[in-house]
Amino acid sequence: MTRPDNTIQVAVSTVIFALRPDDQDLPALWTPFVARTRDPHLGRWALPGGWLSENEELEEVAARTLGETTGLHPSYLEQLYTFGARDRSPTGRVVSVVYWALVRADEIERAEPGENVQWFQADNLPDLAFDHNRIVDYALQRLRTKVEYADIAHSFLGETFTIAQLRTVHEAVLGHKLDAANFRRSVATSPDLVDTGEVLTGTPHRPPKLYRFTRTPNPTR
Amino acid sequence: MTRPDNTIQVAVSTVIFALRPDDQDLPALWTPFVARTRDPHLGRWALPGGWLSENEELEEVAARTLGETTGLHPSYLEQLYTFGARDRSPTGRVVSVVYWALVRADEIERAEPGENVQWFQADNLPDLAFDHNRIVDYALQRLRTKVEYADIAHSFLGETFTIAQLRTVHEAVLGHKLDAANFRRSVATSPDLVDTGEVLTGTPHRPPKLYRFTRTPNPTR
Repeated sequence: MTRPDNTIQVAVSTVIFALRPDDQDLPALWTPFVARTRDPHLGRWALPGGWLSENEELEEVAARTLGETTGLHPSYLEQLYTFGARDRSPTGRVVSVVYWALVRADEIERAEPGENVQWFQADNLPDLAFDHNRIVDYALQRLRTKVEYADIAHSFLGETFTIAQLRTVHEAVLGHKLDAANFRRSVATSPDLVDTGEVLTGTPHRPPKLYRFTRTPNPTR
Repeated sequence: MTRPDNTIQVAVSTVIFALRPDDQDLPALWTPFVARTRDPHLGRWALPGGWLSENEELEEVAARTLGETTGLHPSYLEQLYTFGARDRSPTGRVVSVVYWALVRADEIERAEPGENVQWFQADNLPDLAFDHNRIVDYALQRLRTKVEYADIAHSFLGETFTIAQLRTVHEAVLGHKLDAANFRRSVATSPDLVDTGEVLTGTPHRPPKLYRFTRTPNPTR
């Protein structure tokens, strides 16, 4: 139990998911990456992140590096998983503690990203640096198997939403279309959802009803 | 992004939960600890674990240190959470990747533990080394909020079980008694549970039916 010669480094990275229109203007899952400015993997896209320094908490590193690169400051970052496989970095052992968050489209519009940042559709990523493809795949899998879609929808849509908006969240996360009528029926019987009595403004006629969840969802759990 | 002077150490620890009789012979959650043989916290109880070495995978460290101390070799260890608060160790920054597993009573009976190992009831722990009380509390909370009690019961009880045995698992995890008749009713209507057609042997008359889950549960998720 004597402390070993220390050749292991600790890094912190963050996976951000947002719902944004794809090239056919349909909502899809997107995630931001930062171009690497040095070796290894110079020029490749990588998750926002950096080394853990002695005086920062893990989540502070996640929040700081995310802000510096993407301009995003999510109200809530959750620890996702720690990746530490021996062969994941070509320049020595690196243990990466990975955080994740879901952000709304208006948060992205307000953000001022750095020059080296680009958003990619989560189901169509380039060959990322290190094992970052594997990390995003893991995050996607966790998102898709989440029991509480209420939480996901709340993070992406905010407090109130139409049934059609809720369906687009489910479709974007699942990566395939859902039958609109079936979806409406299953949602109508959900005890978690209530009619707010309000409607979506700015729509011509028969404006759709706005709903909200009956409890305060936990953003990423 | 230059690698910082490396003063941060990575450790791996494991929380094991088992269902064992308490002093009134009622099933309760127990977890094993190892007495520290050096400073800091000499003599205090700590989670089984050790330093990450450059040539071992995270889970290998968890499995090895667990085997060396408790004699347990769970078929499945899952990563629980990574604890890295600045102040969690008095002798420098330590990031601990924590694994967990649920084990059956017969696995403990077969195990050959080391001399410095002792099991404690999870809801009545001594003042542990470092932040290990906090780690066990976190693990307990995760266990209690797990959606799938089928998974927990399967890990503790094995393939088949009586309704009464299943109730003791729920009671031990929740830390309080449940109404037997209500529990039986709620379980009887569960689509996840099937009557095996067999009964518990070794009981005098009216031997209780044995049930199993309809799917293969995932031990700690």
